[in-house]
Amino acid sequence: MTTPLGRLMGIIPPVATPMTEAHEVDAPSLERLVAFLLDAGVHGLFFLGSTSETALLTPRQREQVLEVGIRAAGGQVPIIAGISDTGTASVIEHARVAAKHGADGLVLTAPFYLKPNQGEIVAHFRAVCGAVDLPILAYDIPVFVSTKIERQTVLAMADEGLIVGLKDSSGDETSFRLLAAETRDRPDFALFTGAELLVDAAVRAGASGSVPGLGNVDPAGFVRVYDAVQAGDLDGARREQERLCRLFAIVQIGVADGMALAASAFGAFKTALMLRGVIATNVVGRPLTRYDAEQTRRGHGVLASVGLV
Amino acid sequence: MTTPLGRLMGIIPPVATPMTEAHEVDAPSLERLVAFLLDAGVHGLFFLGSTSETALLTPRQREQVLEVGIRAAGGQVPIIAGISDTGTASVIEHARVAAKHGADGLVLTAPFYLKPNQGEIVAHFRAVCGAVDLPILAYDIPVFVSTKIERQTVLAMADEGLIVGLKDSSGDETSFRLLAAETRDRPDFALFTGAELLVDAAVRAGASGSVPGLGNVDPAGFVRVYDAVQAGDLDGARREQERLCRLFAIVQIGVADGMALAASAFGAFKTALMLRGVIATNVVGRPLTRYDAEQTRRGHGVLASVGLV
Amino acid sequence: MTTPLGRLMGIIPPVATPMTEAHEVDAPSLERLVAFLLDAGVHGLFFLGSTSETALLTPRQREQVLEVGIRAAGGQVPIIAGISDTGTASVIEHARVAAKHGADGLVLTAPFYLKPNQGEIVAHFRAVCGAVDLPILAYDIPVFVSTKIERQTVLAMADEGLIVGLKDSSGDETSFRLLAAETRDRPDFALFTGAELLVDAAVRAGASGSVPGLGNVDPAGFVRVYDAVQAGDLDGARREQERLCRLFAIVQIGVADGMALAASAFGAFKTALMLRGVIATNVVGRPLTRYDAEQTRRGHGVLASVGLV
Amino acid sequence: MTTPLGRLMGIIPPVATPMTEAHEVDAPSLERLVAFLLDAGVHGLFFLGSTSETALLTPRQREQVLEVGIRAAGGQVPIIAGISDTGTASVIEHARVAAKHGADGLVLTAPFYLKPNQGEIVAHFRAVCGAVDLPILAYDIPVFVSTKIERQTVLAMADEGLIVGLKDSSGDETSFRLLAAETRDRPDFALFTGAELLVDAAVRAGASGSVPGLGNVDPAGFVRVYDAVQAGDLDGARREQERLCRLFAIVQIGVADGMALAASAFGAFKTALMLRGVIATNVVGRPLTRYDAEQTRRGHGVLASVGLV
Repeated sequence: MTTPLGRLMGIIPPVATPMTEAHEVDAPSLERLVAFLLDAGVHGLFFLGSTSETALLTPRQREQVLEVGIRAAGGQVPIIAGISDTGTASVIEHARVAAKHGADGLVLTAPFYLKPNQGEIVAHFRAVCGAVDLPILAYDIPVFVSTKIERQTVLAMADEGLIVGLKDSSGDETSFRLLAAETRDRPDFALFTGAELLVDAAVRAGASGSVPGLGNVDPAGFVRVYDAVQAGDLDGARREQERLCRLFAIVQIGVADGMALAASAFGAFKTALMLRGVIATNVVGRPLTRYDAEQTRRGHGVLASVGLV
Repeated sequence: MTTPLGRLMGIIPPVATPMTEAHEVDAPSLERLVAFLLDAGVHGLFFLGSTSETALLTPRQREQVLEVGIRAAGGQVPIIAGISDTGTASVIEHARVAAKHGADGLVLTAPFYLKPNQGEIVAHFRAVCGAVDLPILAYDIPVFVSTKIERQTVLAMADEGLIVGLKDSSGDETSFRLLAAETRDRPDFALFTGAELLVDAAVRAGASGSVPGLGNVDPAGFVRVYDAVQAGDLDGARREQERLCRLFAIVQIGVADGMALAASAFGAFKTALMLRGVIATNVVGRPLTRYDAEQTRRGHGVLASVGLV
Repeated sequence: MTTPLGRLMGIIPPVATPMTEAHEVDAPSLERLVAFLLDAGVHGLFFLGSTSETALLTPRQREQVLEVGIRAAGGQVPIIAGISDTGTASVIEHARVAAKHGADGLVLTAPFYLKPNQGEIVAHFRAVCGAVDLPILAYDIPVFVSTKIERQTVLAMADEGLIVGLKDSSGDETSFRLLAAETRDRPDFALFTGAELLVDAAVRAGASGSVPGLGNVDPAGFVRVYDAVQAGDLDGARREQERLCRLFAIVQIGVADGMALAASAFGAFKTALMLRGVIATNVVGRPLTRYDAEQTRRGHGVLASVGLV
Repeated sequence: MTTPLGRLMGIIPPVATPMTEAHEVDAPSLERLVAFLLDAGVHGLFFLGSTSETALLTPRQREQVLEVGIRAAGGQVPIIAGISDTGTASVIEHARVAAKHGADGLVLTAPFYLKPNQGEIVAHFRAVCGAVDLPILAYDIPVFVSTKIERQTVLAMADEGLIVGLKDSSGDETSFRLLAAETRDRPDFALFTGAELLVDAAVRAGASGSVPGLGNVDPAGFVRVYDAVQAGDLDGARREQERLCRLFAIVQIGVADGMALAASAFGAFKTALMLRGVIATNVVGRPLTRYDAEQTRRGHGVLASVGLV
């Protein structure tokens, strides 16, 4: 792969996938969500990430999200598209669909399910890279993939030209700090954190930006954190980041009721977007269940506490 | 789901998926493999399990395996087909394909990637069960799925009529023993172990049979173990099982060289089948790598030591 | 280490440590428990195992258990004593105390807390072996130690003369089966399972016996399982083993109420022994909490269902 | 417990335990190490932490470390002493020894080995708190303890007056950030990070300071990071922190050679201190092995690269 994705930086939310009551992609809501995020000044859009519930979509629905979302974005910001799957052959198919619909870059985890080793991960990226002509960001999210892409693997893949950056949702902030220091002066490598409560610190440490799931709910807040750090206003960045820490309580509503983490987070984001009038329902993909009326009421309370409703 | 799958018992190998050098399904080899297994007297065939490298196949390739494999089996034994995936919607699509090609039953793991809780697992099975008219076996393999289907969940799903049995590859033999005791007198529930070295003990404890990955390599050996236990010849069963324990060393050849477990096991099975003249190549799905010449040589040694070449 | 422990075989319960209301060792109850176990025909006694709540005892209390327990046993059966700890120096101190009080053998886990690698585990056993003149059994219990003693490590330590056997509480029954087959004809190696619901299968597969925590509650039942297998009465062994499977429900009473597994198991064993009139209280070591009145009532129900009260 | 430990803040290294060739505490080296740390301006000293290899010391050696170390410190800075163990009774004994030797505060993990639940962890702290009259810091290090002290548990224990702070070595920086925001205005709660490469960010986020294992090697560097953040010189803090990131490579020398993490880190710290002339040997506690000549040579290279030799 060779195309540069030079302008990738800033706040790039992993866009939620709004759904109808029948669990189909809700295209009008997705269009409104894209507009909502762009209005807030985000610097890019990431379709088909974990937060997009990609794992719960069929191949046809995956394609539909790209088709609707990329068209709605209208070329205003760079678009990156998730192509992760359990094996190389399926990933290459996803990559071709993403290229067809005009994605500017691809986002790829290690193959999940079979728990490959580091060499097999590199072979996976190498095969995908050889099959499509779009830049690839590695996506490290061991909480779901069960395998970590080690720091040395990331650096080796960057040196080989297989990847142009990393979305780090590993939770290993020591490794992230080392990567940030090691790659700060490297124009061919972009480093993004998925840790939505550590954006100010990550950018301060040298990261290019963040891919915050919570950025669906308050994109303007994350843009303010990013802009404040860029402007050297670290106290302002921290104040805004801490407001987002309080907003994060919305994710824990479902967990407190025994929901699995993913269901709770996705349910929370969609409930907030519904309450903010952006999307039509808070339906999540099967087999997960949406926030119920009581959880929605509590979610409203959290939004109110940080000035979002 | 209502169709009974009453005759499900005995040795039901998870059929490997032979591949060409171009990583496509090798249909002639798959046909020969099916014939080889049937000739050995296996009691059923399981297509699209973990050992079949389903995670490395595209949807089209998954369908091709069912089409070729089920046709080759010619109705001689019951056919069960794996339909596992990360979300409910995709699983239902897989289930319809399996039904179209004539599978007698379906095999389903918990949805992987998003790590659902037990309630979400039941919701998944309930939705799939409501969408297709074939009996479903639960498939518990937390080493790959990362979530265990708890024993109480299994029993509750059986009571609700969602499943007709379990393939237990959890490695939790205490839970298995309890299930075996609790379900022995239950004609509507079939219990299979994926622990290929514990088949004699599992059947003695009340299991219906086994789904042994290693059964690709020596199906006749596993049938002998099963038949001996059924005949009350426990010493004979143990002797044969211990021969299969020695054969198991073939799986560890790749592990000893640093290969991930899955790659090593799949590579071993295919290498053995190639050496036994059943399939054409030992190619495995990308990004895994096949056993090399030296590993193949060692594999030959293991086969020789147990009288298989 | 050189002393043979040739007669080690059969049922060797890990003796619970009865406590007073003040959380001190209850010597009279411990004496009664030893007599109760010996009367049931157990083939050895294991003091200071996990089930003995050794982790909750002070060094002085550890010594007191050995002093009281070994004296009460009066040389009727072999005594093995746990000496596990986080580091080599402390283990050697424990070993000397055990030798002083007349233990016939020692039981040693990998050092816990710092998560050593396999080479460091061997170094640990080598240092302890060089410091004391008693035979050592390795004790593999990764659920608590967090590190598994790999099968190859076990075999290498046996070959080097560092250990005379293994108590396997790893839950890895495939590895156990391989070990059983590999060591059956080896008179210098004794293999015990800690899997109390798999005793019949383990002995059938070649194990020397079992170290069942639940054996505190029904030692006679475990002796019957062992004797039946030895006598070739496998149906009888299975019937008795399945009765013990039903008794196992007592362990899950606390778990169902949110107790951690260890607290629940230890609480269950002591509650049962109290209900059977063997020990005075069901007090467990701090910070664990004993079964309350309602849990005790349910425990009585389980005992009644298998004919123990 | 009621005594305030009001002045606890800044850089408080977990002091390594120098050893003689005979694996005894090397008192003269420990005295020199204490002086070296105090000369560098550290704000407190933590004896008997994980880095102190407490897990590898006998009770007598634990006491000796406190006796020698606290006397050497001469009251210049607050002293906190680790009292962690597997059970409550042993911890209370350790606490009394620490009090006898003049520790100003205690540091306590959840009990390890038996994997208690959150309620049992609170019961543990409550019992210890009731038995000794010294302030307690919770110490969360699940990599070794295997159980995390949840954020809500930390806050509940602070509210109940059981703890006066937390040393967070959990690696969960999102939880840390939330705690930092929630406790910044709370004078009765001190928050320390064990993440030695994130000290600038942690203090910026509101932490009281850090307990950096690497602070044994370059205490002056960590004091400079802390002082720079306090002075508002964030660019200076980052530069110094990144120098320490490069120093961190010394920890990975052993890991790259297959050593377990703990052995590698402890070996690295002691090797560096030996090379810097502070302690006599780089001996580590059994069963760990010290850095060999080649690893020592590479360690020298790392020290040279950051100006420490």
